[in-house]
Amino acid sequence: MAVYTEVSDQDIAEFLAAYDLDRLVSYKGIAEGVENSNYLMLTESVPYILTLYEKRVAPEDLPFFLALMEHLAENGVPCPTPIRGRDGDALRELCGRPAAIISFLNGVWPRRIHAEHCAALGEGMARLHLAGADFPMHRANALSVAGWRPLLDACGARCDEVADGLGDLLAAELDHLEANWPDNLPAGVIHADLFPDNVFFADFRLTGLIDFYFACNDFLAYDLAICLNAWCFERTGEFNITKAQQLLSSYRRTRPLAAAELETIPLLARGAALRFLLTRLYDWLNQVPGALVKPKDPLEYLQKLRFHQGVGGPSAYGLS
Amino acid sequence: MAVYTEVSDQDIAEFLAAYDLDRLVSYKGIAEGVENSNYLMLTESVPYILTLYEKRVAPEDLPFFLALMEHLAENGVPCPTPIRGRDGDALRELCGRPAAIISFLNGVWPRRIHAEHCAALGEGMARLHLAGADFPMHRANALSVAGWRPLLDACGARCDEVADGLGDLLAAELDHLEANWPDNLPAGVIHADLFPDNVFFADFRLTGLIDFYFACNDFLAYDLAICLNAWCFERTGEFNITKAQQLLSSYRRTRPLAAAELETIPLLARGAALRFLLTRLYDWLNQVPGALVKPKDPLEYLQKLRFHQGVGGPSAYGLS
Repeated sequence: MAVYTEVSDQDIAEFLAAYDLDRLVSYKGIAEGVENSNYLMLTESVPYILTLYEKRVAPEDLPFFLALMEHLAENGVPCPTPIRGRDGDALRELCGRPAAIISFLNGVWPRRIHAEHCAALGEGMARLHLAGADFPMHRANALSVAGWRPLLDACGARCDEVADGLGDLLAAELDHLEANWPDNLPAGVIHADLFPDNVFFADFRLTGLIDFYFACNDFLAYDLAICLNAWCFERTGEFNITKAQQLLSSYRRTRPLAAAELETIPLLARGAALRFLLTRLYDWLNQVPGALVKPKDPLEYLQKLRFHQGVGGPSAYGLS
Repeated sequence: MAVYTEVSDQDIAEFLAAYDLDRLVSYKGIAEGVENSNYLMLTESVPYILTLYEKRVAPEDLPFFLALMEHLAENGVPCPTPIRGRDGDALRELCGRPAAIISFLNGVWPRRIHAEHCAALGEGMARLHLAGADFPMHRANALSVAGWRPLLDACGARCDEVADGLGDLLAAELDHLEANWPDNLPAGVIHADLFPDNVFFADFRLTGLIDFYFACNDFLAYDLAICLNAWCFERTGEFNITKAQQLLSSYRRTRPLAAAELETIPLLARGAALRFLLTRLYDWLNQVPGALVKPKDPLEYLQKLRFHQGVGGPSAYGLS
């Protein structure tokens, strides 16, 4: 949680002159999002989110992200929609950073996950995948299987600083995933980062999917694999099959899963666990002194990876 | 800027059950305030601020702060007013911390100070002082002259880690202030921390004074001295006499200054500079690894102290 760029009252006033919004009455930096600076702007009518894109987001990807949000929102997905200025542009510059105003979504992200959240998430994700089917732009997933080897190499011998034998374990896992990763599953636009803090609810009704800044084209079932890791393990590390079953069965009711997708879920879940393990490990080993964000524990994902390694088939996730 | 305590959706729902507010639609941790955790709560009608009081605020002082805000708001000072629950209480507990909901104020704090801000501040502060005159509670200022010696002693020989000769300079200054500090100026409730991020404006109209968690009883003119330091120096370190003149003359139009107050302003300004120099120095020398808040530069206040040491009389601040 952080605000990296302090936006002055004069900066924001000049920025807003390009828009036809109601008068701004307040804006506050919000302690959410680890990649960008976010401000909640209150106007005389509705609130908005102002995002300044910081260095971890590639500026050339922003047109994809913004167009995707607009496309999804137009097609009924509860996600923020970029607000266009009088010139028709949604993306401009503020304090030397690319910046955009997006619509504000009600709801709160769940700090404690219930199976009902997972069910609502499953349906919401399936709707996102269906709505994304005719989105014309394309963005490769830089953090899919081809991106993991460079990450592991960058951690190198230092893996074992975090846990004894971690380097060998990751190398063997990556060999296995590279050799067995599928190439023929249904693909399309995925969110790729649907962690609980990116999903808003009012009670158990899903009201918002936010933070599309990892969205890309990949296997649709890989989005499910990410959420199996992010939503279906307890804080104690135990896998909760009820949550997984709710997530997957709810998803299937809106977008049926092909046989090949079902069979591959355990492998995709291993891949998703390795992906977050590797990025967390890299951030852990490359901490910036004085950084505003504390790195997340990579070993949480080692535990998840080990669970999926021991899984016999999709029934372990409540799939039949 | 920080949120120290993460409040879950369930925690907040249970907490709000004690209130008669409209339905909560969203809440976001806000990146403001260095002492407490603050959430901006959006309801179906108006927004509120939820504050969880962290360890730097003494729980026994909270009734003073909350009653003061309520008293001032009732008497026309634009400051937050505590919201009482159905049981009549404004102060309760959330996530193991004392917590209160206060009203939300429109406006934004000025990142770049203009003389017009200082003029509006002067009038607002004078109104605060007048409205506080019949507030019945009392809280001593732990950070006035009697509190500075223990702070300097706690920094001890380490002062010179920050600047050569700083320890001797501070000891001599403190001797001077202790020997000359007044004891007969008009006193009452002061804010004692009216830095720019605690004052909201809409254009140059003052819309809010917030963060009363250093408020106490002390010389009224000491509040002005704090603001001379906080508002009237440029980032380059130069004193801006126009801003000081606007602050003080605007204040005097609402609450005239006695001759003794006028004469003592330079000494009070030295004291205020020393107070913030010492607390910043202490925090600088006692940094907590991994803390969410970066300590502020103590030497900024050394430069201000030196300016006031060189001042011949109140005319240096534009006073006649």
